[in-house]
Amino acid sequence: MPSLSITLGAKIRAMRNRKGFSQDGLALQCGLDRSYMGRIERGEVNITVDKLYQISELLDCEPAELLPRINEVDREARN
Amino acid sequence: MPSLSITLGAKIRAMRNRKGFSQDGLALQCGLDRSYMGRIERGEVNITVDKLYQISELLDCEPAELLPRINEVDREARN
Repeated sequence: MPSLSITLGAKIRAMRNRKGFSQDGLALQCGLDRSYMGRIERGEVNITVDKLYQISELLDCEPAELLPRINEVDREARN
Repeated sequence: MPSLSITLGAKIRAMRNRKGFSQDGLALQCGLDRSYMGRIERGEVNITVDKLYQISELLDCEPAELLPRINEVDREARN
């Protein structure tokens, strides 16, 4: 099972594509550096809940829609 | 409307009480300092998504159950 950050990053990427945003476009709207948005989507960073809300608001979805269920993520891989 | 961290903290506190944990007990199980858990529940800190999963796993609930809907939180109060 993949780690939490990798699964979350993949869900953000899928929602972004579904909503028709480019990675640069979403980064720009979030006021984030493009490379940081890439790191979020690749699961390389552990974002805050506030950042999750910022991203989901721009993607016009509920934050809960971006969260994998607990049994979808590998607990050890998360630490 | 209250800020995200205050709303999230209140939801964590409500779930903790519903599940019969003391604040100290939950802090201990999370490997967190007791005062930090108090700050989380009072909405004084902006926790990471990983910490949200750690807390929800211990409370045996899905992380999404602890998240307020976007329209329940004051966007400005969140920054």
